[in-house]
Amino acid sequence: MPQSSQTFPPLQDGDLLAAIDLGSNSFHMVIARYLLGQLRVVDRLRETVRMADGLDGKGGLSAEARQRALECLARFGQRIRNIPPYRVRALATNTVRQLRSPLSFLMPAETALGHAIEVVNGREEARLIYLGVAHAQPPKPGQRRLVIDIGGGSTEFIIGSGMQPLERESLQAGCIASTRRFFPGGKLSKKRWKDALTEIGAEFQPFAAKYRALGWDEALGSSGTHKAISEICAAMKLSKGAITAQALPLLRDELLRAKHIDDINLPTLASERRPIIAGGVLVLEAAFQSLGLQKLLVSKAAMREGILYDIMGRASDNDPRDESVAALTRRYDIDAAQALRVEATAQRLFEQVADSWKLDSDDARMLGWAARLHELGLMIAHSGYHTHGSYVIEHSDIAGFSRQEQQMLAALIRTHRRGVPKTAFDALPDRLLLPARRTAALLRLAVLLHRSHEDDPIPTLELSVDGDALSLVLDKTFIDARPLLRADLVGENEGMASLGIVFRPFVA
Amino acid sequence: MPQSSQTFPPLQDGDLLAAIDLGSNSFHMVIARYLLGQLRVVDRLRETVRMADGLDGKGGLSAEARQRALECLARFGQRIRNIPPYRVRALATNTVRQLRSPLSFLMPAETALGHAIEVVNGREEARLIYLGVAHAQPPKPGQRRLVIDIGGGSTEFIIGSGMQPLERESLQAGCIASTRRFFPGGKLSKKRWKDALTEIGAEFQPFAAKYRALGWDEALGSSGTHKAISEICAAMKLSKGAITAQALPLLRDELLRAKHIDDINLPTLASERRPIIAGGVLVLEAAFQSLGLQKLLVSKAAMREGILYDIMGRASDNDPRDESVAALTRRYDIDAAQALRVEATAQRLFEQVADSWKLDSDDARMLGWAARLHELGLMIAHSGYHTHGSYVIEHSDIAGFSRQEQQMLAALIRTHRRGVPKTAFDALPDRLLLPARRTAALLRLAVLLHRSHEDDPIPTLELSVDGDALSLVLDKTFIDARPLLRADLVGENEGMASLGIVFRPFVA
Repeated sequence: MPQSSQTFPPLQDGDLLAAIDLGSNSFHMVIARYLLGQLRVVDRLRETVRMADGLDGKGGLSAEARQRALECLARFGQRIRNIPPYRVRALATNTVRQLRSPLSFLMPAETALGHAIEVVNGREEARLIYLGVAHAQPPKPGQRRLVIDIGGGSTEFIIGSGMQPLERESLQAGCIASTRRFFPGGKLSKKRWKDALTEIGAEFQPFAAKYRALGWDEALGSSGTHKAISEICAAMKLSKGAITAQALPLLRDELLRAKHIDDINLPTLASERRPIIAGGVLVLEAAFQSLGLQKLLVSKAAMREGILYDIMGRASDNDPRDESVAALTRRYDIDAAQALRVEATAQRLFEQVADSWKLDSDDARMLGWAARLHELGLMIAHSGYHTHGSYVIEHSDIAGFSRQEQQMLAALIRTHRRGVPKTAFDALPDRLLLPARRTAALLRLAVLLHRSHEDDPIPTLELSVDGDALSLVLDKTFIDARPLLRADLVGENEGMASLGIVFRPFVA
Repeated sequence: MPQSSQTFPPLQDGDLLAAIDLGSNSFHMVIARYLLGQLRVVDRLRETVRMADGLDGKGGLSAEARQRALECLARFGQRIRNIPPYRVRALATNTVRQLRSPLSFLMPAETALGHAIEVVNGREEARLIYLGVAHAQPPKPGQRRLVIDIGGGSTEFIIGSGMQPLERESLQAGCIASTRRFFPGGKLSKKRWKDALTEIGAEFQPFAAKYRALGWDEALGSSGTHKAISEICAAMKLSKGAITAQALPLLRDELLRAKHIDDINLPTLASERRPIIAGGVLVLEAAFQSLGLQKLLVSKAAMREGILYDIMGRASDNDPRDESVAALTRRYDIDAAQALRVEATAQRLFEQVADSWKLDSDDARMLGWAARLHELGLMIAHSGYHTHGSYVIEHSDIAGFSRQEQQMLAALIRTHRRGVPKTAFDALPDRLLLPARRTAALLRLAVLLHRSHEDDPIPTLELSVDGDALSLVLDKTFIDARPLLRADLVGENEGMASLGIVFRPFVA
């Protein structure tokens, strides 16, 4: 697939980039200017939306929280109106992940913002956090760094070296969620605290030993919670410029003296953070205990900066998704020669219809990745391998991809052969439905044309579209010598019809 | 897990072994005597049940076909009455795989036979066929051999070297199925034949190139169809002792002269094979064309002999399933140290309750494999990894395992942590339900005890059962120092209850 295209020009000096983080506690926006390969932040916005507060525990969101979110997004939307969409990314995290039907929030949210909003899973969030922190404060060469980000709904733990995350974990415990879960009604007590530490500690078990064994030279906390706790520690003269293993229990004891969340009175603590500080200190104490932490420095950067650097990567030859796809092809032992044949033909087909079908370079990339990965499921079994490959792509943590992108990739792999289930594209937002179906049709055709799994160049390959009708012209001598291919093309009408496409194969 | 146990003693000289193959065309039974590490066939039975004829294309089986099958199995059952069950294996193949609800046939079938009947998938069938042929006619050292087995419903293609299959494929086209599909009403014509060759040829595309590239030094056909075709060729003086690329089209032309299946008149052809010979010749001609075959020798051995050697392997230290599990642990990069800890503890627990809970060495092995594989899904994602691992095990072609065995393994992996879905064991036959639930409980406990993923020996570990109540006693000092473990044990009641078990953790 083309690394750059007419639609998405490479970054130019002076271009503005915008990153929006729909966090569970606050929404953030940061705008930066691209100059000589660097980013310079020119604007920051932050609003305490506290969306996690509106979760009802059953995947519903309160009308108030929803309203706060939409109003904030409308304000943010005003700010990005003049930035081209491909230089803006808006990502939602844990609270939207918790929703029973994310689309029913995301659709009005996208309208309010005037831009697509993607959902990322905890590990992708972790990758972006690390990226943001690493660019803001580059680690010393050869050193390992632990980064902790306590969000409203989840907490991310990353060990990395240089710009590269080595381990990424996401814990289903954030400052809002933990406050609500362990201190219902706002009551604080030593007993509740101890029980809560045990419960959260248990969640660390799957990775704590691995993290301790890997180790780190320095630890950084990257969220508002860390900044607040560090400032309290400094004001109480418990520690200075860092949070330490000695200071944290003293701060916790001071906090517990309040007996109720409303009565918490800690120096420098902003009133808007008072209702959620207990959960934050709790998660942090559990992290100190489970990971054997001694000292945590505070970083100002966070996921929003990571998103900016990710936009930069996607606009360059270093799209992190290319490396992830390459890793999957190695891990699942995919026949590289066949993937290459299918990808090249898919590209030939794409170029002929992209303009008429309004497919852009995002679709081109997606088609390329789907071509590289379409045989992934063969590692599980030949029978139904398209379904198996789709399952793996849908459920894997794939660095660099948002949930919607993974769902689109999974849908393309699911539908690349055999029958197309009516539900195949259900997970996708409306705006992706048409491009997904059309891209799927191109992949089907490319796979069909290379079904022999042999090097067998296709001389004539003319594809044209008229609305939803797709016409293919092939060389007569070529097709006459390949009765199997002819039979496959004739039989392809049905699959294409399920994609809403009228397919007409012709012979020149 | 113990390689041998009280229940399944190793083979002794003089022991009888029985293999039963519920094929789509015929049911076969072969009985052999074990002597000095060798098998000597002492009895063979074959009945033309033609079960595939009873398929209605929607997963139903006609009452007549069902009745023929049950009556045959009752006769076979009489013959194996005095052979211990662990030296008998009865396997069903393609026709039972096609049934909408296999259990509704298998339950009365097992009653008629008086023995469990397992279903194997096409690739496992292929492995057993190769095993049977390789033992009957050992390949020359260093040579590669292609084996083709045309069954009633499917055809298997194996390339192997020595006793080892290298490639195994199963094509959804057998002699009965193809006759019904391409010659409905019994009408034969050149046009129908040509179209059928194209359609079947297309099914070869995913693997034909790979097979041709790998190549072989000799090709053997191992089914009744091959024997019949070879005899006709010899009688017509087309070829002798083999089927050749020159002879086959001549035989086919002779066959087509009949215009109707009822009028086929070929020398030496038994009347019971007349209704299905057209489909057999068709599949074989497609194979000759797609694989570029020149000459096919005929082998007398088939899957039934392979089953006998498989029983021998399972009774020895060479259980083929051990190697398959080891291959999966490598392929999915499973943490071997953790798997070993869980397996050792699972074994400690198993030994204490096996007698009371009537668990046998089959269950012990299954528990061991589940312990080795329980973290397989981590390669896909940490979140829900038990579900992912279960998906992979359920859908993979795993050499040596029957479908039911894979389903049990998948169920154990699915239920080793978190909630147990009501449907988790639905795919299992009734006779496996209780052992599966009990084995699942032991695995849950072993995984829970090693949740820290660290080397942390458990001093006291006393497990006892009273009906469905499970009591665990742990050392007090040990548990007092591990509050997370205590919390996990207390929280385990719910999961155990879903398995129908009352769990009582005590501290000594």
